[in-house]
Amino acid sequence: MTTLLALYRRPDGGDEALETFLRRYHSEHLPLVAQTPGLRATRVQRVAQTLMGESELVLVTEMDFDDRAALDAGLASDAMRQAGRNLREIAPGLTTLLVLEEGG
Amino acid sequence: MTTLLALYRRPDGGDEALETFLRRYHSEHLPLVAQTPGLRATRVQRVAQTLMGESELVLVTEMDFDDRAALDAGLASDAMRQAGRNLREIAPGLTTLLVLEEGG
Repeated sequence: MTTLLALYRRPDGGDEALETFLRRYHSEHLPLVAQTPGLRATRVQRVAQTLMGESELVLVTEMDFDDRAALDAGLASDAMRQAGRNLREIAPGLTTLLVLEEGG
Repeated sequence: MTTLLALYRRPDGGDEALETFLRRYHSEHLPLVAQTPGLRATRVQRVAQTLMGESELVLVTEMDFDDRAALDAGLASDAMRQAGRNLREIAPGLTTLLVLEEGG
């Protein structure tokens, strides 16, 4: 299993900006992501509380693929390219995108 | 489902410090976490690559609980208190700990 982990920071502009981001994330971004070939599962979660450390993170999304080759093929797909362009529009500079591999 | 998400940054001291942290994380920290009442699943993953944004993150661990009440009970347990003390020893100032809730 290889996981693409997206960490989203709080946008400037208070609660209204956050609500706009979340609305567009669900209505525009996730439908594009859902079309990614090889994507096995998607889990979207809100940050309810920060217990340790400082964090401006508000949303965390995991996207699971069978392995690194499947992830790379997914990243190169039209769906992911469109999703990437959408992200730069709805959350410019607010995203950290990591590739995670099992095994600690 | 409520998830406790731990994000670990790279320690100072190069590869040797990183290897020491990972070794102690597996041999000392995870056995303590595993004793937490109410913990349903644990997933430990290494950061293989950063695709977007800047990140010093090297390790990401998810700990799943049935709900927020189960998480709070787990956090108050002896096992988690010991795990917290261990973490301040093996990764001082390097951890961000978030509570995630389903629902986007």
